[in-house]
Amino acid sequence: MKFTCSKNELIESLNAVSRAVAVKPQMPLLAGIYMKAEGSGLELQSNNFSLGIVTKIPVSTEEPGEITVVGKFLLEIIRKLSGETVTISYHPGESVVNIQSESAAFTLLAMNAEDFPKVKTQEAFNSFKIKTSTLKKLIRKTAFACATDDTRPIFTGCCLEINGNSVTMAATNTHRLAIMKETISEDLGEMKFIIPASTLKDFLKISESATPDSFINVDCSNKYIAFTFDNIFITSRLIEGQYPPYDRVIPAASEIFATINVAELASAVERVALISKETEYNTIRFIFSQDGIEISSTSPEIGKAVEHVNAQVEGGNLDISFNAVYISEILKALDGEKCKFAMTKPLAPVDIRELDSNNFIYVVTPVRTSN
Amino acid sequence: MKFTCSKNELIESLNAVSRAVAVKPQMPLLAGIYMKAEGSGLELQSNNFSLGIVTKIPVSTEEPGEITVVGKFLLEIIRKLSGETVTISYHPGESVVNIQSESAAFTLLAMNAEDFPKVKTQEAFNSFKIKTSTLKKLIRKTAFACATDDTRPIFTGCCLEINGNSVTMAATNTHRLAIMKETISEDLGEMKFIIPASTLKDFLKISESATPDSFINVDCSNKYIAFTFDNIFITSRLIEGQYPPYDRVIPAASEIFATINVAELASAVERVALISKETEYNTIRFIFSQDGIEISSTSPEIGKAVEHVNAQVEGGNLDISFNAVYISEILKALDGEKCKFAMTKPLAPVDIRELDSNNFIYVVTPVRTSN
Repeated sequence: MKFTCSKNELIESLNAVSRAVAVKPQMPLLAGIYMKAEGSGLELQSNNFSLGIVTKIPVSTEEPGEITVVGKFLLEIIRKLSGETVTISYHPGESVVNIQSESAAFTLLAMNAEDFPKVKTQEAFNSFKIKTSTLKKLIRKTAFACATDDTRPIFTGCCLEINGNSVTMAATNTHRLAIMKETISEDLGEMKFIIPASTLKDFLKISESATPDSFINVDCSNKYIAFTFDNIFITSRLIEGQYPPYDRVIPAASEIFATINVAELASAVERVALISKETEYNTIRFIFSQDGIEISSTSPEIGKAVEHVNAQVEGGNLDISFNAVYISEILKALDGEKCKFAMTKPLAPVDIRELDSNNFIYVVTPVRTSN
Repeated sequence: MKFTCSKNELIESLNAVSRAVAVKPQMPLLAGIYMKAEGSGLELQSNNFSLGIVTKIPVSTEEPGEITVVGKFLLEIIRKLSGETVTISYHPGESVVNIQSESAAFTLLAMNAEDFPKVKTQEAFNSFKIKTSTLKKLIRKTAFACATDDTRPIFTGCCLEINGNSVTMAATNTHRLAIMKETISEDLGEMKFIIPASTLKDFLKISESATPDSFINVDCSNKYIAFTFDNIFITSRLIEGQYPPYDRVIPAASEIFATINVAELASAVERVALISKETEYNTIRFIFSQDGIEISSTSPEIGKAVEHVNAQVEGGNLDISFNAVYISEILKALDGEKCKFAMTKPLAPVDIRELDSNNFIYVVTPVRTSN
């Protein structure tokens, strides 16, 4: 096998497939990147059995063939090469793969390409197209709210639900819930899957250079979901199980409403969090009144922070405490200048939305304090 | 005590004094920053007994006084404030210090200011002035070569030696040696001290904004050295002991000479180091010949890197191996386009210099290999 290609195109492709290279591989081959050169194309693959990625770049093939090498070293080496093109060659039967660029010659131990677990295209029960910007927005507004520990795997995933022209993504770690609804032009029928948040975050990174107006092909089977765009194919296992009926968590009616400038609130919360992060539960206290919001946090060992933030508060006063992270994360996900908090009492869930839209709903459970 | 000052000036001062705030303090007060407001000036101090730093900034004092607060939190908080000025106040007898800026009010637990170990001015036996750029160059060219583990404390310091108009700084970890000589206009007599490399690195950071043409006042006693410039005073303990006669390590005569482009060599070494860093001793092999240098490294588990670098080699061929870090670090410290390696045989120390100057000398011991 022998091919020559652009260094930068190869780096971009390796950056993408590296996301599915196993860090602690169950079997050595999973730490590898598989490459197959044929005609004017090179296919790169990585597969850790949860996630599989396939990319294609144009190359000039002198001799077709396939190889597998350790992904970590391949990417490090290609990144540091000084030339603009790279030539990679391998003679079947030899133990090493040769990488050549200008004055540099590297050899990396070859792994068995035949045994590499190739990424499979699953038979799709459901296939649809969705605009890149729409899918990215659904992910950006929700995936951060998932659980990060996998004691209950279902909460490490985002629930994607399609009902006709309506697409909803929801994520929760049971203490907070984020729901994003989008309307699409096509009627897609009914579907529901739980996609690992890690897959969705990888998708966001890999699709960074994709045109917002382009479309992503989504193919789903019972156990797998696949995204296809440009020359990239990403397939991921789905999380099995029944996603809880999250709509029930949205407070039915609220009594106290506050309209707040998002940037001002974020800046105040960031400062008060300097103290709250030193407390056991990262607790930040909000006192809503006609004067606005007094935001504070107290640590017996360090001191206290108090901030005043302007807000238009209606329906009464409220003294309520939160985990500061759950507030600062939602503020980053909000679009628009202002947001609206809808509340009832100190320990009842709070509903946070953008001012002029109900497409994005965030519900957060307050923290019980001794105050 | 109550004063108001510019946030940015306070941050710059806190950044400087933070370098002597103890991370794991022997006594709680050493984690503190001491502040004393009087008239139009605020003095800030930190002291970990190895290093003491005093800075001064202009403030508007409403009520003079002194306080000590935990340095880490003070700096974090001041950095995040949104206003351009900060007011800090303290009522003697109270347990907290108040920090106010725009909508933010912080209180930090006050520590005992009276008991704070104030930085002392030692009686100086020797005092001299040195140009900021000269002192910085002496440090930049040598301090990196010190030992980082303190099994033999003397090697964690740089030896500063003054002989009339000649100032020399030397540093070694016994495997490599860096010597920088500078000539100054004044005759300073004879002096010799061993200054901790950590102090010199802190000095480089703190003096970043100092004018290169300005002068640093240096005061030395038997056990302490102090640097004074702008509104900053840094005092550090000296390392006691007899510095070894490093001149003897410089090879008296060499047989093989190579003239090499520094940037080309650095780039090649950086790539080959991708393989060498995975080997037990970070070993990189240089084969000098009429054709230039073949630089390589082999790891049985990963593969091999080979680079060719152009060089003008005189006096014969040589196959010699180094610790890659000792080569890449010297290449960063070299000024000028080209450098010269002077060598004798595979296991004899190598002398590396800038092409047109003998003021900077680097000696590195090769690595014994089984090649």
